[in-house]
Amino acid sequence: MNNFIFENSTKAIFGKGCVKEYLACLLSHYGETVMLAYGGGSIKRNGIYSEIMAVLEKAGKTVVEFSGIMANPTYVKVLDGAKLAKESNVSLILGVGGGSVMDCCKAISLAAKYDGDIWDDFWVQPGVIDFEPLPLGVIVTAAGTGSEMNGGAVITNEELKIKTGRDYPKCNPKFALLDPIYTYSVPKKQMVSGAFDTLSHIMETYFAKPDESNVSDDISEALMKNVILNIRAAIRNPEDYTARSNLMWDATMAENRIIKLGKQTDFECHQMEHQLGAYTNCNHGEGLAVLHPIYYRHIYKYGLTKFKQFAIHIWNIDPTGKSDDEIALEGIEALADFIKEIGMPSKFREIGIDTDTDLKAIAYSCNIVPTAYKKMTHEEIFEIFKECF
Amino acid sequence: MNNFIFENSTKAIFGKGCVKEYLACLLSHYGETVMLAYGGGSIKRNGIYSEIMAVLEKAGKTVVEFSGIMANPTYVKVLDGAKLAKESNVSLILGVGGGSVMDCCKAISLAAKYDGDIWDDFWVQPGVIDFEPLPLGVIVTAAGTGSEMNGGAVITNEELKIKTGRDYPKCNPKFALLDPIYTYSVPKKQMVSGAFDTLSHIMETYFAKPDESNVSDDISEALMKNVILNIRAAIRNPEDYTARSNLMWDATMAENRIIKLGKQTDFECHQMEHQLGAYTNCNHGEGLAVLHPIYYRHIYKYGLTKFKQFAIHIWNIDPTGKSDDEIALEGIEALADFIKEIGMPSKFREIGIDTDTDLKAIAYSCNIVPTAYKKMTHEEIFEIFKECF
Repeated sequence: MNNFIFENSTKAIFGKGCVKEYLACLLSHYGETVMLAYGGGSIKRNGIYSEIMAVLEKAGKTVVEFSGIMANPTYVKVLDGAKLAKESNVSLILGVGGGSVMDCCKAISLAAKYDGDIWDDFWVQPGVIDFEPLPLGVIVTAAGTGSEMNGGAVITNEELKIKTGRDYPKCNPKFALLDPIYTYSVPKKQMVSGAFDTLSHIMETYFAKPDESNVSDDISEALMKNVILNIRAAIRNPEDYTARSNLMWDATMAENRIIKLGKQTDFECHQMEHQLGAYTNCNHGEGLAVLHPIYYRHIYKYGLTKFKQFAIHIWNIDPTGKSDDEIALEGIEALADFIKEIGMPSKFREIGIDTDTDLKAIAYSCNIVPTAYKKMTHEEIFEIFKECF
Repeated sequence: MNNFIFENSTKAIFGKGCVKEYLACLLSHYGETVMLAYGGGSIKRNGIYSEIMAVLEKAGKTVVEFSGIMANPTYVKVLDGAKLAKESNVSLILGVGGGSVMDCCKAISLAAKYDGDIWDDFWVQPGVIDFEPLPLGVIVTAAGTGSEMNGGAVITNEELKIKTGRDYPKCNPKFALLDPIYTYSVPKKQMVSGAFDTLSHIMETYFAKPDESNVSDDISEALMKNVILNIRAAIRNPEDYTARSNLMWDATMAENRIIKLGKQTDFECHQMEHQLGAYTNCNHGEGLAVLHPIYYRHIYKYGLTKFKQFAIHIWNIDPTGKSDDEIALEGIEALADFIKEIGMPSKFREIGIDTDTDLKAIAYSCNIVPTAYKKMTHEEIFEIFKECF
């Protein structure tokens, strides 16, 4: 195992009824004014909004609403939120939603306490945060990104056409409330997309050195198998509490830093998808679904041991009488088949990206990850993009 | 998954050279006087003591030594340590050792800041700690208990013949330094005993409800397989860094609360071993090794689904043409065989417990765990003890 440092400051409160049971107590640690941040308003239709407002009102809080946080949250939206938080003297941001809301709120929590330009100072390159961001608590309503238990925030700078993320431990939410029942009303397409994002996070962590025994990889395998089993179960029955609760905690475990310990990670696929998102606003999980098998066919020879292990341990490929290459490729095929089985796209056309898109510009705007099994070139990324049609 | 709350405040710093690289920086957050707490002095023979003292001296700290912490640390020893810490106006306890040292130091950190009797108020029954214990940092030199990343402390009250533990999050070490190379000099018997303690912690967590898909159980399976693989590797070559690092992090992961999330646990075997330890001072890991297979043969029918899963997933038992009972029992036999393979005892006589021991008194002094698959009676525990000859 490689050397590492681990800490995680978020308090995670998980299970049915947790908002009603614990939110009031959590709110009591903060001042009078709470900024309630959310997305397009689905929480008003499914009753979550009124459940939370009832707690806020009973706690005597002044509520400042900040709604309309979009998928692929923009830097402009972050600045709007920070302005509102400053003007309203907010004591706590309460983000209610999925990854987009949580990521936007983390960036707001920084910008609300910073006089400079957070994009320039903390996103263009890593910075040092020597101040306390505005406290943030989150209530998760869509599982997938695992943003609830790390300091990571992916923000899109529309003007510069850059979608990128940083993980600052100081941006970890103070608390995260995770009620699997809150995810019942997420439409199938979005549920599957979120769960595939989780699977992608685990694969991106798994497919990098070292290749010798490493308990973090073993835990990743356990998580991958659990995600696969429970995506299937949640598709069969969207109100299967066991499936929803596993998918929800899988998402958190995939991104609370545990499975990254003692190892390198890849995340090149995420870099490619981020720039696709920045240029085309495509759905994150769907972009990843298209890219993953094609990317892996390009790189598997450079990480053959791990790709073979992936095939055998995750997809139960029988290795008898097959070469390592054949086994590895069967594993990638099994992943591609699974993507189709759960109704996710395999081609760019299915996610609204057509041949008119300037794929070369997108490819050349991608970050290159040095720790991937095969360090990509921008030309190789362009080739991968072309194969996605 | 059952409802849960998770948080863990310990900062874990892992890998070769971590003490030299990070201890000075960690010490800078605390005052002048450091209590250096350790066991029988093996750290003086293997060079760890001088490495740590060099850092403490360079940092200009006044060092108060507290040595001689024994296996199965006693309440009397805790009180001695607390008296010394109070008298010397200690700012930080730095515990260097394995589980016994860490547990003793946690109890000292409480007692040093408490005017009452910590045994009565926090160990006889759970109490509320509404004060800050003396800060504790640990340097792990023997892997096994996982005490470095929780607030648990098992203390033996010799007068009352009770060995028991509590887990208070406020007692979590502030930091834990884990250098796998520090464990190279641990003798084989002690290394295997520690690793079996880890395996026991995982099994005790695994063998309880729920029995439906639960990612925490899947992670437990990953950890068990990693421990088994790497005990074998570390026996073959005690200086196998990969094996030692996996065993060290497995121990932490087994007891940092992660695998307990969303489920009940058993830990009846630990309760039995604790009382054996209180009466006979037997080695903890060895006591567990004797008890586990016999205990499991008594309870497997009450958790047949999980015992069958254990046999197939952990020990690769072929289920073809066998009844569930046969599969489950083959898994328990595989565990018993593994215990013999790694040179651990299977009988009480091998760990110095003979027929003169008042096993009935020990059995009737054991705590009963209500969440085990089969809630024991004291008479059943007595029967299990008798079968251990």
